[in-house]
Amino acid sequence: MALLFSYAGADPESWRQEFAKHIPDLDFRVFPDVGDPADIAYVALWMHPLGDLRRYPNLKAILSFGAGVEHIIRDPELPEGVPIVRLVDDLVVRDMAMHAVHWVIHFHRNYHLYQQDQPKKLWRRHPHRDPAQRRVGFLGMGAMGAVAATFVRDLGFSVAGWGRDPVSVEGVEFYQGDERLADFLRRTDILINVLPLTPATENLLNAERFALLPAGACVINISRGPILVEKDLVQALDSGHLEAAALDVFCSEPLAAQSPLWSHPKVFVTPHIAGINYAHSAARLMADNIKRIEAGEQPFPIYDPVRGY
Amino acid sequence: MALLFSYAGADPESWRQEFAKHIPDLDFRVFPDVGDPADIAYVALWMHPLGDLRRYPNLKAILSFGAGVEHIIRDPELPEGVPIVRLVDDLVVRDMAMHAVHWVIHFHRNYHLYQQDQPKKLWRRHPHRDPAQRRVGFLGMGAMGAVAATFVRDLGFSVAGWGRDPVSVEGVEFYQGDERLADFLRRTDILINVLPLTPATENLLNAERFALLPAGACVINISRGPILVEKDLVQALDSGHLEAAALDVFCSEPLAAQSPLWSHPKVFVTPHIAGINYAHSAARLMADNIKRIEAGEQPFPIYDPVRGY
Repeated sequence: MALLFSYAGADPESWRQEFAKHIPDLDFRVFPDVGDPADIAYVALWMHPLGDLRRYPNLKAILSFGAGVEHIIRDPELPEGVPIVRLVDDLVVRDMAMHAVHWVIHFHRNYHLYQQDQPKKLWRRHPHRDPAQRRVGFLGMGAMGAVAATFVRDLGFSVAGWGRDPVSVEGVEFYQGDERLADFLRRTDILINVLPLTPATENLLNAERFALLPAGACVINISRGPILVEKDLVQALDSGHLEAAALDVFCSEPLAAQSPLWSHPKVFVTPHIAGINYAHSAARLMADNIKRIEAGEQPFPIYDPVRGY
Repeated sequence: MALLFSYAGADPESWRQEFAKHIPDLDFRVFPDVGDPADIAYVALWMHPLGDLRRYPNLKAILSFGAGVEHIIRDPELPEGVPIVRLVDDLVVRDMAMHAVHWVIHFHRNYHLYQQDQPKKLWRRHPHRDPAQRRVGFLGMGAMGAVAATFVRDLGFSVAGWGRDPVSVEGVEFYQGDERLADFLRRTDILINVLPLTPATENLLNAERFALLPAGACVINISRGPILVEKDLVQALDSGHLEAAALDVFCSEPLAAQSPLWSHPKVFVTPHIAGINYAHSAARLMADNIKRIEAGEQPFPIYDPVRGY
């Protein structure tokens, strides 16, 4: 049983060792050294070349290294009937929640302003509201949104979430569906996007949506870049309507040197690090799914083409 | 019944209004417009001139605008037998905990490095450990330390606390007393100082204590400046032994323009903002203590000269 590993930037050796702890006899092959394509039963991948996956006639599952699978389903020549398995790791969910918590506090408490004051040796306070009067909103209330909303709620913020399917988190106001999106945005001072990228969410955060946010709002994007229209964001920041943005994901990654986001004084860029896989944990979850499939059981969570994620 | 308000930098009018909500007939006087000193029954103060308090023959209590009272007890001519009442406001404790959480995540996730990379348009990851392998330590486990430790614990960090009196917080390892201090420091990757300033804690964080921290440790000071020896910290940062420091409090405030801390690339300066009083909440707590005293009850918490805080 061969697994094809295709994860640019990752060290294959550490992953080979972690997989071997769970499936000692796994034939671990590193793309592009495939060997006989007929041997490949599983592909574990991130940003794999388009059109390649149809080369493996005995493929049982496509395992994503991310919770999102848009990097897989953009391939127009995907093999039919092969399940695409998402990776939802509690450790990564918690790390992404931690990223959200960091930037919520950072903007709420004006640390971005203090960091501008320091080189000027300016000792001055930037008043902040009681967090109970600061309205934080999670766009997306799946595993990620719910965990992050809980942490932020516990810090005393007024928290709401928006999503398609009903979600109940104690102390978090829920806005359901397209018809509640405008209301949700109007009450949100600090917006965190955790939506999956689907045709329905692409370009969702555009000029019209930014205009619905209250003046002085901040935007944090931690899920996928193409959900946010970068030039509309820059415009909303430049007009003074929005106060600041923390972006971890971009329409094109790595972010190009010529992007105006790098040097925008109100934009804080991180290089897609909100949730980075831990090999020990991800390999265990993936190995568990391989074992399920080998035992004739369903892996999970499987990408659902109807929901789009 | 007159209250003398002495709080440089605060807007007296908003405080007058907040006090009036709880004690409508309060005679609210703003220092230095004292009127007849014999009228003054209460003084609510922050950084009041030394030697002034003995002028009020009918003083019933001295109310501090901070949890710390070292700004009061440094006065060699304090009136005898007048209780000094500390201000411990849950909202401010929570805000200080939030400040600690922010800097713990900031250093743990290397946001200080990403902020250095952004002007260089550098798209590169700075790996971080699983938070379970990052050992956070609170020096001081009073109200502040315990609340902050709980938040940091919930984010998945390995948390310990050190204190003089035994404190039990679930999931937080406790190191008690002077004989455990070295062990506590040796296991602490991110140190947060929340101790009160007393003769026993002044200069506690000196070269010898920094040397006990593991290489690459970070220091966060949020209680009082003189507990930390600033030149020893700079030396430990310059030698590369310490990675970074976030300082909200200083030996002398406002921090002087000639201080090397302002321009040190590994030091993050904030102007004593970790916990700022909310007038509505602080006035309520102080008014409650005035009512207690008027009713013949004990105010709390009272400064204890034996403990030193």
